[in-house]
Amino acid sequence: MSVKENNEVEQWGIFEVAIEGSAAGNPFLDNTFTATFSQQHRAIEVAGFYDGEGIYRVRFMPDTTGRWSYRTDSNLAELSGQEGTFEVKPAGRGNHGPVRVANTYHFAYADGTSYKQIGTTCYAWAHQGDALEEQTLATLKTAPFNKMRMCVFPKHYAFNENEPEYYPFPLLAKGSSKWTGNWDTVKGIEGWRFDFDHFDPAFFRHLEQRVGDLLALGIEADLILFHPYDRWGFSTMSAEQDDRYLRYIVARLSAYRNVWWSMANEYDLMPQKSLADWDRFFRVVLESDPYQHLRSIHNCRGFYDHSKPWVTHQSIQHSDLALTTKWREDYKKPVVVDECCYEGDIWQFWGNITPQEMVLRFWEGTARGGYVGHGDTFYDPNDVIWWAKGGVLKGVSAPRLAFLRKVLEDGPVEGLEPQTGIVRGMRPIVVGKAHDYYMVYFGNHQPAVMQLNLPSDEKYRAEVLDTWEMTVTRLDEDYSGAVKIAIPVVKPYQALVLRRLA
Amino acid sequence: MSVKENNEVEQWGIFEVAIEGSAAGNPFLDNTFTATFSQQHRAIEVAGFYDGEGIYRVRFMPDTTGRWSYRTDSNLAELSGQEGTFEVKPAGRGNHGPVRVANTYHFAYADGTSYKQIGTTCYAWAHQGDALEEQTLATLKTAPFNKMRMCVFPKHYAFNENEPEYYPFPLLAKGSSKWTGNWDTVKGIEGWRFDFDHFDPAFFRHLEQRVGDLLALGIEADLILFHPYDRWGFSTMSAEQDDRYLRYIVARLSAYRNVWWSMANEYDLMPQKSLADWDRFFRVVLESDPYQHLRSIHNCRGFYDHSKPWVTHQSIQHSDLALTTKWREDYKKPVVVDECCYEGDIWQFWGNITPQEMVLRFWEGTARGGYVGHGDTFYDPNDVIWWAKGGVLKGVSAPRLAFLRKVLEDGPVEGLEPQTGIVRGMRPIVVGKAHDYYMVYFGNHQPAVMQLNLPSDEKYRAEVLDTWEMTVTRLDEDYSGAVKIAIPVVKPYQALVLRRLA
Repeated sequence: MSVKENNEVEQWGIFEVAIEGSAAGNPFLDNTFTATFSQQHRAIEVAGFYDGEGIYRVRFMPDTTGRWSYRTDSNLAELSGQEGTFEVKPAGRGNHGPVRVANTYHFAYADGTSYKQIGTTCYAWAHQGDALEEQTLATLKTAPFNKMRMCVFPKHYAFNENEPEYYPFPLLAKGSSKWTGNWDTVKGIEGWRFDFDHFDPAFFRHLEQRVGDLLALGIEADLILFHPYDRWGFSTMSAEQDDRYLRYIVARLSAYRNVWWSMANEYDLMPQKSLADWDRFFRVVLESDPYQHLRSIHNCRGFYDHSKPWVTHQSIQHSDLALTTKWREDYKKPVVVDECCYEGDIWQFWGNITPQEMVLRFWEGTARGGYVGHGDTFYDPNDVIWWAKGGVLKGVSAPRLAFLRKVLEDGPVEGLEPQTGIVRGMRPIVVGKAHDYYMVYFGNHQPAVMQLNLPSDEKYRAEVLDTWEMTVTRLDEDYSGAVKIAIPVVKPYQALVLRRLA
Repeated sequence: MSVKENNEVEQWGIFEVAIEGSAAGNPFLDNTFTATFSQQHRAIEVAGFYDGEGIYRVRFMPDTTGRWSYRTDSNLAELSGQEGTFEVKPAGRGNHGPVRVANTYHFAYADGTSYKQIGTTCYAWAHQGDALEEQTLATLKTAPFNKMRMCVFPKHYAFNENEPEYYPFPLLAKGSSKWTGNWDTVKGIEGWRFDFDHFDPAFFRHLEQRVGDLLALGIEADLILFHPYDRWGFSTMSAEQDDRYLRYIVARLSAYRNVWWSMANEYDLMPQKSLADWDRFFRVVLESDPYQHLRSIHNCRGFYDHSKPWVTHQSIQHSDLALTTKWREDYKKPVVVDECCYEGDIWQFWGNITPQEMVLRFWEGTARGGYVGHGDTFYDPNDVIWWAKGGVLKGVSAPRLAFLRKVLEDGPVEGLEPQTGIVRGMRPIVVGKAHDYYMVYFGNHQPAVMQLNLPSDEKYRAEVLDTWEMTVTRLDEDYSGAVKIAIPVVKPYQALVLRRLA
């Protein structure tokens, strides 16, 4: 029985049932294993999975407190008809449940706590071995990020030439009749072909450990299910194998409350998949996930149609954050610009913007009612670059993003919505909550004066934020109605925040 | 006879004939006065103009050296049949003739010298009285600008409340039967109505003086013929009055070799004019100007159709210089982004970008094969803001633009054309002359390494330009073929220039 099975679990925690069963044949393909979890009128059927060595598991994330019961079902007699009960206690400190879409364009945890996304990207951090992975976790512990974009599959790309410690599938025995094509020699290993009809549970246990590590740090794991950066064949499996992989990973990981599903990174760089494939992947995940974790798909150039009903939010690659306004209007879903270029100094132009520009893009996306993602891509003698492998941050934007996160967490819980009519002039970027909170972001502009039309019967306190120096300067006066506000210092990267007093 | 009439003038100088004639009736409307200037097989008919006090003038800018003759014609006997000859000497130092379009996307003076446009804007500088106007000229003397955008008519706008010293038209006598509407009181002057059927020559003589002052400084005068910022009625004359004004100013000023004609500033903010009016204005100017000075029209939001044959170049307002590439392709004419926001600190967002951003926009437009314009809009206790009134520059971008101008003047005379295939990567901005000169502009990017594919049988020297610090660092090595070039310092606002050695 699993270490995680006990008779008590907290709300949005993981309750697990593990049962020994036959390992004959191919248990991944041949055997079914599910459990129905019940409380009062509710009955939720959850798929289990084979975890190797004759162990079958099923995991459940209860969303209500109180007594729950379960009953298993399987084609194998020994896995079928097992019953039990368990008690769900209130969520512990720091456990707010999974993140959901809230107020159309924003996010909140299941308990209603608002979630202000400050994401980062370490695509292949969980494929680097314990020493580096633990360094990454240590970095994250004091970093501002509350979301990590990461690939399930290992990554083959510039600066990413090393082999991972684990693979999701076992290697085929050389000469196996399951493979009739050529046997390649890759990185010195002859006959490099994976058996896509079996999973390697060790790979997934390791992935779960890292997702759990993020959970402990309060970080959402935006799991990228497919990507084009592949030398192992994981991007060119058959449709049946793709779908089986999706069901397997959803069965294993959906009980982790911090999981988000990203169908792909740069789906449009994968000619081996059609749009119908992506639609099907969304449907498979949607049908398999009892908890309906957030679902999206990330582009390189052209967008997938975010208006499709299974897309919960927009995961965008684009360097022009001014378009956030348009994307909100186009799709009426939260905008997360996960890639808008990264702070760094590598030769690739997507990976060498200045820290000032990285911070500016976060603020511009924010001040247009969206959310933005970070990356750190500085040359490293050992090719350990945060954006792919984790390690340490070499850039200086992170503390500024911590400042932004604090500003957001001190702002309206509902999220920042575009505001019009408050600031005189055509181009200011204004966001907030009407009659409560207004934020004007100046970006590369440096006005010495702002002319505002605040509601005349309301009084506001004014703060000038230096988004680069991370300072908040409260202005001496409070304001009401049509006012001119002098900005004390003429410089870029400032914002003006108005908070209602009365 | 005019002071300017003598028997000798230099090529592209101004030869003028002045004759006394009847001042009876309304000489502006009633009398015609032209002269035909002849040399060998050529005969050029040029319109003259009434300059007040019984003096009629006709001006001619000869474009070839040698002996020319003229003969006048008029409905008045005393202005008709006057003949003379004069000698055109070679152009003097600094006189390269008028600026023309060259190589589709670029400019050159008539003598073939290339012209690298670094423009500025002082809309109403010539309406501020001698003290301030002379200060403006003193500033221009050491500034990098070789083009001035300026309005013919005075300007009514924020920070522009003062009355000009001269008006283009005389005031109507109160109670005149020529005006049947209301008599307004404007700025304390009762019965403020202009007589659009007469010109005030003093106004135009003053304007000519200032255009001549710019000519002496080597600065092109981009004369804005109409604009919406009006409290005097100059934007709402009748079609007949508009056309008469255009013919009058062309007759007076087209012999100044540094004149460019801008039909309007923000033509699309003038609902009183239709697109057909703008087409007609172009045609009137085109038909009246014997020298075919450059012609354009400046937008606020939507563009006039720059593909129309009478448009010589694009005069654009837009803040996204990345679109320069598209505008070149769309219209196949030179792109001059005359307004991309101004360095300053006023509350209007078009007038408060940082100097870094101003310089960045110049470089981005340049590095995409276009030209850019400057403005300086800092608060002033007396509302003397460079962008409208001239005076002194308060910003710090100008020396950086001088550096850019020097870089351009040290580059290919033909102008910089977009180059592909030279730099590895998707986003670098590369411009130059194939097999001779390549410039890669980094902008807000800070690569530590560039990967280039130079022609393999050619050798290039490499310079790193810091466009903000105004330094040029020659790299130790010369380069050929596929190379990695280390950029010594990781910082923004740099460019890499490769000049062919062999």
